[in-house]
Amino acid sequence: MLEKRNPPVGARPGTLAIPEGSPPPRIYLFDYSEETLVEGLVDDLDDLEPYTRTESTTWIDVQGMGDEAALWRIAEMFGIHPLAVEDAVNLPQRAKTELYDDYQLVIARSPLVEDGRLEVPQVCILIGRRTLLTFQDRYFGFFDPIRERIRDGIGPIRRGGPDYLAYAVLDVLVDRYYPVVEDLSERLDELEEVIVRDPQSEDLVGIHKVRRDVATLRRVGWPQREMVSEMARSPSPFVSEDVRVYLRDSFDHISQIMGRVDFCREVAVGLMDIYLSNLSHRQNEIMKVLTLMASIFIPLTFIAGIYGMNFEHMPELRFRGAYFAVLAVMVGLAVFMVGYFRRRGWLGRRRRRRPD
Amino acid sequence: MLEKRNPPVGARPGTLAIPEGSPPPRIYLFDYSEETLVEGLVDDLDDLEPYTRTESTTWIDVQGMGDEAALWRIAEMFGIHPLAVEDAVNLPQRAKTELYDDYQLVIARSPLVEDGRLEVPQVCILIGRRTLLTFQDRYFGFFDPIRERIRDGIGPIRRGGPDYLAYAVLDVLVDRYYPVVEDLSERLDELEEVIVRDPQSEDLVGIHKVRRDVATLRRVGWPQREMVSEMARSPSPFVSEDVRVYLRDSFDHISQIMGRVDFCREVAVGLMDIYLSNLSHRQNEIMKVLTLMASIFIPLTFIAGIYGMNFEHMPELRFRGAYFAVLAVMVGLAVFMVGYFRRRGWLGRRRRRRPD
Amino acid sequence: MLEKRNPPVGARPGTLAIPEGSPPPRIYLFDYSEETLVEGLVDDLDDLEPYTRTESTTWIDVQGMGDEAALWRIAEMFGIHPLAVEDAVNLPQRAKTELYDDYQLVIARSPLVEDGRLEVPQVCILIGRRTLLTFQDRYFGFFDPIRERIRDGIGPIRRGGPDYLAYAVLDVLVDRYYPVVEDLSERLDELEEVIVRDPQSEDLVGIHKVRRDVATLRRVGWPQREMVSEMARSPSPFVSEDVRVYLRDSFDHISQIMGRVDFCREVAVGLMDIYLSNLSHRQNEIMKVLTLMASIFIPLTFIAGIYGMNFEHMPELRFRGAYFAVLAVMVGLAVFMVGYFRRRGWLGRRRRRRPD
Amino acid sequence: MLEKRNPPVGARPGTLAIPEGSPPPRIYLFDYSEETLVEGLVDDLDDLEPYTRTESTTWIDVQGMGDEAALWRIAEMFGIHPLAVEDAVNLPQRAKTELYDDYQLVIARSPLVEDGRLEVPQVCILIGRRTLLTFQDRYFGFFDPIRERIRDGIGPIRRGGPDYLAYAVLDVLVDRYYPVVEDLSERLDELEEVIVRDPQSEDLVGIHKVRRDVATLRRVGWPQREMVSEMARSPSPFVSEDVRVYLRDSFDHISQIMGRVDFCREVAVGLMDIYLSNLSHRQNEIMKVLTLMASIFIPLTFIAGIYGMNFEHMPELRFRGAYFAVLAVMVGLAVFMVGYFRRRGWLGRRRRRRPD
Amino acid sequence: MLEKRNPPVGARPGTLAIPEGSPPPRIYLFDYSEETLVEGLVDDLDDLEPYTRTESTTWIDVQGMGDEAALWRIAEMFGIHPLAVEDAVNLPQRAKTELYDDYQLVIARSPLVEDGRLEVPQVCILIGRRTLLTFQDRYFGFFDPIRERIRDGIGPIRRGGPDYLAYAVLDVLVDRYYPVVEDLSERLDELEEVIVRDPQSEDLVGIHKVRRDVATLRRVGWPQREMVSEMARSPSPFVSEDVRVYLRDSFDHISQIMGRVDFCREVAVGLMDIYLSNLSHRQNEIMKVLTLMASIFIPLTFIAGIYGMNFEHMPELRFRGAYFAVLAVMVGLAVFMVGYFRRRGWLGRRRRRRPD
Repeated sequence: MLEKRNPPVGARPGTLAIPEGSPPPRIYLFDYSEETLVEGLVDDLDDLEPYTRTESTTWIDVQGMGDEAALWRIAEMFGIHPLAVEDAVNLPQRAKTELYDDYQLVIARSPLVEDGRLEVPQVCILIGRRTLLTFQDRYFGFFDPIRERIRDGIGPIRRGGPDYLAYAVLDVLVDRYYPVVEDLSERLDELEEVIVRDPQSEDLVGIHKVRRDVATLRRVGWPQREMVSEMARSPSPFVSEDVRVYLRDSFDHISQIMGRVDFCREVAVGLMDIYLSNLSHRQNEIMKVLTLMASIFIPLTFIAGIYGMNFEHMPELRFRGAYFAVLAVMVGLAVFMVGYFRRRGWLGRRRRRRPD
Repeated sequence: MLEKRNPPVGARPGTLAIPEGSPPPRIYLFDYSEETLVEGLVDDLDDLEPYTRTESTTWIDVQGMGDEAALWRIAEMFGIHPLAVEDAVNLPQRAKTELYDDYQLVIARSPLVEDGRLEVPQVCILIGRRTLLTFQDRYFGFFDPIRERIRDGIGPIRRGGPDYLAYAVLDVLVDRYYPVVEDLSERLDELEEVIVRDPQSEDLVGIHKVRRDVATLRRVGWPQREMVSEMARSPSPFVSEDVRVYLRDSFDHISQIMGRVDFCREVAVGLMDIYLSNLSHRQNEIMKVLTLMASIFIPLTFIAGIYGMNFEHMPELRFRGAYFAVLAVMVGLAVFMVGYFRRRGWLGRRRRRRPD
Repeated sequence: MLEKRNPPVGARPGTLAIPEGSPPPRIYLFDYSEETLVEGLVDDLDDLEPYTRTESTTWIDVQGMGDEAALWRIAEMFGIHPLAVEDAVNLPQRAKTELYDDYQLVIARSPLVEDGRLEVPQVCILIGRRTLLTFQDRYFGFFDPIRERIRDGIGPIRRGGPDYLAYAVLDVLVDRYYPVVEDLSERLDELEEVIVRDPQSEDLVGIHKVRRDVATLRRVGWPQREMVSEMARSPSPFVSEDVRVYLRDSFDHISQIMGRVDFCREVAVGLMDIYLSNLSHRQNEIMKVLTLMASIFIPLTFIAGIYGMNFEHMPELRFRGAYFAVLAVMVGLAVFMVGYFRRRGWLGRRRRRRPD
Repeated sequence: MLEKRNPPVGARPGTLAIPEGSPPPRIYLFDYSEETLVEGLVDDLDDLEPYTRTESTTWIDVQGMGDEAALWRIAEMFGIHPLAVEDAVNLPQRAKTELYDDYQLVIARSPLVEDGRLEVPQVCILIGRRTLLTFQDRYFGFFDPIRERIRDGIGPIRRGGPDYLAYAVLDVLVDRYYPVVEDLSERLDELEEVIVRDPQSEDLVGIHKVRRDVATLRRVGWPQREMVSEMARSPSPFVSEDVRVYLRDSFDHISQIMGRVDFCREVAVGLMDIYLSNLSHRQNEIMKVLTLMASIFIPLTFIAGIYGMNFEHMPELRFRGAYFAVLAVMVGLAVFMVGYFRRRGWLGRRRRRRPD
Repeated sequence: MLEKRNPPVGARPGTLAIPEGSPPPRIYLFDYSEETLVEGLVDDLDDLEPYTRTESTTWIDVQGMGDEAALWRIAEMFGIHPLAVEDAVNLPQRAKTELYDDYQLVIARSPLVEDGRLEVPQVCILIGRRTLLTFQDRYFGFFDPIRERIRDGIGPIRRGGPDYLAYAVLDVLVDRYYPVVEDLSERLDELEEVIVRDPQSEDLVGIHKVRRDVATLRRVGWPQREMVSEMARSPSPFVSEDVRVYLRDSFDHISQIMGRVDFCREVAVGLMDIYLSNLSHRQNEIMKVLTLMASIFIPLTFIAGIYGMNFEHMPELRFRGAYFAVLAVMVGLAVFMVGYFRRRGWLGRRRRRRPD
């Protein structure tokens, strides 16, 4: 339910706990200014070297963390603090932002539905003065639309520095919550429809899954909201005032998302109540049928039992018409019982009782 | 349950996601000062041009967003920041207010009940120095009373600038919550009356609907309360101190509304508890009848069964009066059982047991 | 459940929504200094004129709001801001305090139990430099003890200005919560006693009523607490430092009251749980009786049924003593069943099972 | 459930509402410095006079408030503000602290279990420059250990002034919460043990009592925590910096206590859930037995009933061995039913079903 | 459930309440600089003396508190404030940090699962200028990895002072929460799997245990989070700015842990709901079987009963084929009942009803 996280307790800070199954790093480079654009996969780390000194904006996207030496090599090349490297690699972390001498560290999470399971992988963003580094433990495809925008060269992205790019990345990560929350909302709509009409035990599991996903989104989303708020609010040498205006927009989005998540939570609790009430209601229906059958036929059977006794001196047995009289009494009793239950509203179409 | 919102993830900021089904913009203009008044539908955007320069107060109400080019045209004419345009068009947004160079952006929501469904459409207000722009994705009729007040020319509205007009708009949007909350409260009153007396499964659905509407109002209302508070509190170049006094009044209204919404929520939870208790209670009543019938007649039937056995040597069968003796025993047993159940309070009018 | 409030949406601020059924204003005047005292009903508004200029403390208590012209006349005479008049008349408002140029506006609420229904009418207080105005939509008798104290002339009230008088009024309004909360607490005590012993469905309604009253008190009480706190804390030109010491005392009272209200809420939720548990418990008792009767007699009846069959070749039927043997088997079976149920604790005085 | 508090609404501030049944004041005096020590009961208030002027630390403990004149006499002698006297006498108050010209007023509460009922009487402490006054409405024995420490003269108490003494008093009052909370925790442990194994309806009452005590402790404890925090934090002319270090310690204690109270609350709610589940579970067990008996024997009885019919033409009745064949069918049916129920897990030792 | 804590109420501050069963102190010393390293058990307290003056970093780990004199001796030797000693010994305390003249006191807790029971023992850390003292009431093995790191001499630990060492200790204590929370999460996963499929009453106990552990972790964890936050935020003469960067990291960890604990709590509540629903659901299943059996066979038995009556004049009895006709009627009735129940969905594989 929770991601495992097993860095050895008591390890030296800066110890990297490479996530299990993380592929070796695949490094994708963008280097652009308003006029120029270089992009491509970097096979040899040495090829990165010139980009540590360019005036243009450099975006290095590290996908996979399966090679500790390579990670340290990159860190050294770009002057990244060991604690920041640790934060980038030792996942999952809570969303946060922290200032280091040469970089602002941003840990963000973005939801992903895989095989029907909600996961919220982490992306680490390091905003430098002319460089942006992003780290993900495998390639999630989060950044494809941004790459397109850089290639297109329309809009402010090519004019902006790494801070604008960081905003674009963060905005993508935040906006990816929308479809997940809408999916939750739709699942609740469907559950509501069937639960109100005819609840089944599988619906219970459905509600539970929604509640768990809501709890997951709350767990990762609230720190993210706080982090975006901090980035939009507090001055930083790495994020210009202009970009902070855009970050306020991201903050609105994440706030709205969290409002919707809380809404889903409230509705899910309500559905649970309805489910339980409906179960109770149905049990009442079953009980009524049982009580009806038992209350009508048990007394009748008793009467039949009486005249089934073998006493020698039972005067009625010899009366002509006694049999039919008894049958009549039985029918009368049954009619009375049915009438009684009908009056109590246990039989036939229920009508709301009038106020007394 | 939640409005869809599908701007493409990763889109350039400033990308407009025209709401589906939004009609092409219909622009209604007011230009007034204490002495002068011009109003009317604007067919050609060029006709708006002179109003960008007048000293009188100009109110441009854009209804419908089905034409991106026209929206950008208006934005350009009045010098609106692209992010503000995006906020105006990409709905629904959380209520918020933001300062731009030439405008203060206000996003507000106002409830609307359509076909028994609660919706909370968005209105975007841009407060400029001499201009007020409002954007709605179709015409909701929210502003009719304000138009009347402008036409009447009585009261402070014609003397005030765009900030006073913005207050008037916001006040209308906030006050529209009152009838919705009163409707909730009445539905709860009705539910309470029937649930206490005689709960039905349709009442459950009624409670659920109230709870969902309460959750919706909370989701959109709390950010709105925060927004109005911020407008009333923080200084802004676009809202004068005088108008902020009025905004404090709007803040009181929205606060009171949210207090009532929370009250409805509490009552709805209480009704749910009563509903469930009543269901339990009714089940007990059914069980009592069943138990009563079964407990009285099953033993009697058993006795009848004994004397229905066909053993050759059953001395009682031959005794004169045995039949009547057995009948007497049966009556006695029934009387005893009835007495027992009456003493336990399962039969007849229940009285509260005395403390032991 | 909630008071109606129907000022026309979109009305001009300062529009008075006279509460339905509000009688025409009845104005009661006090004008006093340490040595002098004038009091009486004011029939003609013109008689109020001289009191706008006296150096002594003037208290004008307006009871009833059924005459808009008179209200505006008073407002004009004493220089009251239209928004303040609106707040005084358009009830119910949340408790609040606001500074105007010549007055501090205070909206307070005070509970009142009428015909077993909890209502929380509003009193509006305007604290001027030498004048205190109070507005209520009908006469509630809240102020009788204060009038006595003014007449007696003992204590600081005659020496104090309008601010001390405002404190006295507020103190009375706050202290009136105490008996209401004590009544809630007693109702809970009574409910607790009967619910623990023998819950009835009318107790459920009792709990619900308590919960609704608690919700009402919370809804009106928390803003009142905030308002008193603000008056005791923030400096105001209309309330002297000395009187603020007294207001701290009122703040303690309202805080204590809200603590007790929350306590009642917690206890009421607990009682609901007990009620439900007891219902469940009682159902178990009913079920046990049913199961007992059915489990003992159904098998016996079956045995009797076997020997009631009419097969020609049933050897047992002819055995001497077979009848008595069968009776003995039946008794044995019944004894066994009773023993079994006693061992399971379903019969007789239950004892707690030992730990295994 | 709540202590009564009936000061006449609208009374003059400074009106004393002597608690009902409060004995006449019994005044116990300590006057000490590092070298000197005077202690004793004060019979005549005049004897107190000299102590208003001594340089040594004077502690006047007023036990009982049954004599208003005496209380006013003491107040006058030591220069106590009337509002402070009122706070000391009109109990119960929320814990609080307030600065007056010559004294710092502290209202504290300390729990007391009497006849199994949790009460939380109030102690009022007035910290003067050379004097400490404490007021309790009867003698609770709270202060005995402090008196011993003063008499012993070891430790800092004799060197400290009234502020240190006030800390000592407060510390005693706070520490008295510990055994109460531990008692709650033990009651919960016992309840847990029996409820998990075999819940009884008296356990429900036990949980309810714990919950009520928890609610009481929360109601009086949270304001006390706030008050101690304020004393430890905000500078005061009556409490030296050195003593504030000690008060931080008291703050830690009361914080820890409140954490434990909240913990008890959480556990109590959990026990309630278990109780209810267990009740449901037990009902299922009862239902299973009933269903089992009914399902096995009702069909068998029906078969017996068939062959008990008196039709003249029932060929089977004459077959030799028909009786035994029917018996065999009955046994077979019973075995089948038992097998069916065993397979459904309703009979015999339940095993967890394998996943499908 | 809660640890006992019985320091005598009213004891002098500085009174040590040695935890019951605490062994006599076992003192383990480290004294290191970047080049030098001394370590070992200290048998004679006098051997500690020289280390009070060294320039190298000295770490004194006191394990066990069974000897009051020894503790005071150490306190005196290193100049520790009596209140700090009290905090170190009188356990358990809430996590906190406090500044004294010569030391910063840190109280931390770290979870420990012993015999399946969650305990959260306390460690007291005193950060001096060149010395670090740690106190635990017995040896928990928490510090073994740190000792290894000191011995290895790699990484910043040997270069850092007592503040870095304190961070290392705190980091170890915080990180030890991870496996505990992961264990909770796994227990919930297992419970979820079995409860959704087939809930047993032992699962209820399992949920309760998880909830209690969650409540325990919340009780000790939140103050710890606050404490770490305070250490990372507020300047202190004992903790350098560099180390505060590391403490921010610890703060992230404890925040993440608390987020996960809250997540577990939410899931546990959800499981409880599922458990209860499943119980209700199963009861419905049992009821259906009972109702089915009773409803089919009771009417049939009644019919058999009729023809078992011994009236002399029952014409049907003599009809040829009457027996078979009655049998046919019975079969028809049974088929009808089965059909009826199947249509209501009580029999056979349930399908979801179509919407009406």
